[in-house]
Amino acid sequence: MNAEIIAVGSELLTPERSDTNSLWLTAQLNELGVEVTQKSILGDDRDRLSAAIAEALQRVPLLILTGGLGPTEDDITREAVAQALHRRLLFSQEICDEIKARFAGAGRQMADINKRQAFVIEGAEKLSNPNGTAPGLWIDLPGGMLMLLPGPPREMVPMFGDTCRPKLVARLPQMAIRKRFFRVAGMGESDLDALIAPVYKPYLNPVTTILAAEGDVQIHLRARSSTPDEAEALVEELGAKILETLGNRVYSQNGDPLETVVGHMLRDRDATVAVAESCTGGMLGARITDVPGSSAWFLGGFQVYAPEMKARLLGLDQKTLDEHGAVSEVVAKAMADSARDRTGATYALSITGEAGPESQTPGIDPGVVWIGLASPKGVEAKMFRFFSGRNRVRKMAVQTALNLLRFQLS
Amino acid sequence: MNAEIIAVGSELLTPERSDTNSLWLTAQLNELGVEVTQKSILGDDRDRLSAAIAEALQRVPLLILTGGLGPTEDDITREAVAQALHRRLLFSQEICDEIKARFAGAGRQMADINKRQAFVIEGAEKLSNPNGTAPGLWIDLPGGMLMLLPGPPREMVPMFGDTCRPKLVARLPQMAIRKRFFRVAGMGESDLDALIAPVYKPYLNPVTTILAAEGDVQIHLRARSSTPDEAEALVEELGAKILETLGNRVYSQNGDPLETVVGHMLRDRDATVAVAESCTGGMLGARITDVPGSSAWFLGGFQVYAPEMKARLLGLDQKTLDEHGAVSEVVAKAMADSARDRTGATYALSITGEAGPESQTPGIDPGVVWIGLASPKGVEAKMFRFFSGRNRVRKMAVQTALNLLRFQLS
Repeated sequence: MNAEIIAVGSELLTPERSDTNSLWLTAQLNELGVEVTQKSILGDDRDRLSAAIAEALQRVPLLILTGGLGPTEDDITREAVAQALHRRLLFSQEICDEIKARFAGAGRQMADINKRQAFVIEGAEKLSNPNGTAPGLWIDLPGGMLMLLPGPPREMVPMFGDTCRPKLVARLPQMAIRKRFFRVAGMGESDLDALIAPVYKPYLNPVTTILAAEGDVQIHLRARSSTPDEAEALVEELGAKILETLGNRVYSQNGDPLETVVGHMLRDRDATVAVAESCTGGMLGARITDVPGSSAWFLGGFQVYAPEMKARLLGLDQKTLDEHGAVSEVVAKAMADSARDRTGATYALSITGEAGPESQTPGIDPGVVWIGLASPKGVEAKMFRFFSGRNRVRKMAVQTALNLLRFQLS
Repeated sequence: MNAEIIAVGSELLTPERSDTNSLWLTAQLNELGVEVTQKSILGDDRDRLSAAIAEALQRVPLLILTGGLGPTEDDITREAVAQALHRRLLFSQEICDEIKARFAGAGRQMADINKRQAFVIEGAEKLSNPNGTAPGLWIDLPGGMLMLLPGPPREMVPMFGDTCRPKLVARLPQMAIRKRFFRVAGMGESDLDALIAPVYKPYLNPVTTILAAEGDVQIHLRARSSTPDEAEALVEELGAKILETLGNRVYSQNGDPLETVVGHMLRDRDATVAVAESCTGGMLGARITDVPGSSAWFLGGFQVYAPEMKARLLGLDQKTLDEHGAVSEVVAKAMADSARDRTGATYALSITGEAGPESQTPGIDPGVVWIGLASPKGVEAKMFRFFSGRNRVRKMAVQTALNLLRFQLS
């Protein structure tokens, strides 16, 4: 089955706002075997919206509208749908009482303007909205369905999930979907694709999608079949082949980000970690402590951004710094060693590099980063060259440091 | 004048990808006085796209298509436009030679498939693409215009900016746009709006847009008129009133983020800053060092996440910690004092709080954060209560700390 989504609201036609509801809805629909074939964004113009609705319903049997259900004159979705379907809008005392009760619960009186939200399109079914005043509407049509959902995600998401999804499932042919999700660190998108394209290309089902961020590649597999067992077998076959090809480059199969995976490895070993950060200025510690409960494995560390701080806070020898420069193997190792020593952590990671845009270190190009790792077994450091700007260099350095610790813990 | 934008590509109908080109194009068009009245996203289906193009051209005089100009069978924008306009596609030896030369320049041979990109719609003007193989196309129609632009932003942006924008300006009525942009810290969106709504609501021109992120509100004003002087007078009148109402809550009028504004204030005073971070784990240092050249004012600091690190790395008295708890005024002050002392910085900021989701400190609710500031004049600390989750609490703490330093420096 094919579907279209129309997001309504003039604010979505400004340079600042984008329609994110449709991404979430697309994921939900895809899971049910429904493909989205067109998305549109329209402003608060009733005639234009009404025409777009009528056109969409000639193309697809399922149309979802989000937004424009509020109480103001700008909110024209109900009127536009009624016009497109040539149906009347009927006042519902029941909905009006519910809205009144909602306001009363918050110690307020319902404004007259909110009565607009109590109008229902003839033949439509009301969808309750526990998170706002605007009820949604569901309309069964000859050979199709139409949903009116509120625009705010905190209202739209539970309404679709709790009410629309089950109704949709009951109306769709049985279809089982099974998925796999791998997260990979330590290689770029194109290298990864070159490696696994020969593996996944022969398969049209499961569908393979690859997404990349700084030093982090996600592989999504989605298999469809008429039975859960068949879908599982399809996704399992390709998933196993991809896992075999990538080995321990895959760090997560449940969606957990790298900082969570590494954190839990430390926790399971009763180990702790500390940091010494130069060019990242605190990003590594910030990332490690993004994880709730990270106090179980993260002790702390040192932001030694200015060269003299490496001597002053970590006790590095000024002569060593002068001789080798702050961006060097010797300094990366000494930073990690000192951070481990001064915090008493099991492991310590250090980062010292040139983030750019201008190099502050003679002879060192922007993008060059040394990463050190001190452990009970000793200390090591590796050099990396990252490209494409200060922000990316710093993010790559953090991701790479976490991945080095993961390999150490594996 | 009104315009529509159609983004072409089946990948833009997945849950993972959104069309960002249209946001940039909308900003460009708005600057020229053109409003975007509809945006659509369609897959790689020629007939469907062709119908959508024909429909759009009946509604608006300006249609921009992005994507689908590549060399593969999936790339159907040229064919769909030709079909919608009932025009032929003509092979251009000149374009073919250019593409060949481009490949040769990279030491490669043009694949046969790239010949598809050398077809031009009858009557269309070629738009050069210095950043890719796909040329764009510009078509003047009776009473309208149509542009075909490549999908990758690094190709689309320069093509529109260098070629389409001047062509468009020449065809549009004279229209002057003047803007103001204020960034505000230290108050939430609804408080801010309550304060300035009575000021800006009476004005339809300039248009006022308010956008909010964690602890950071942006106010955009945009005035249009037939002459630059008139537009400037309009935006100046409202801008001055808003500035007067908000006073020094406005921290930037040129778009600079708070970390840049504070960094440049420090630089101008030949002053430096250090940090001592508990619940933020390094986010404050990371944010300060987002700014290129921040080595001129940021020295470094201490990530004292685990309670014992506050004693171990900063030398805080264990008895004080036990007595007052790590999230307290006394500890926030001692952290800032010690960080200033140990780094030798002019100023030091400290952050100690409960980010949540679970409180680790008896008697302290998640969201409670103490922020300390040590300066040559002494040390002070303030308590804040931030809401809505670990990530937001940490971001609010960092923003608030930077803003405290800004006020100290003002």
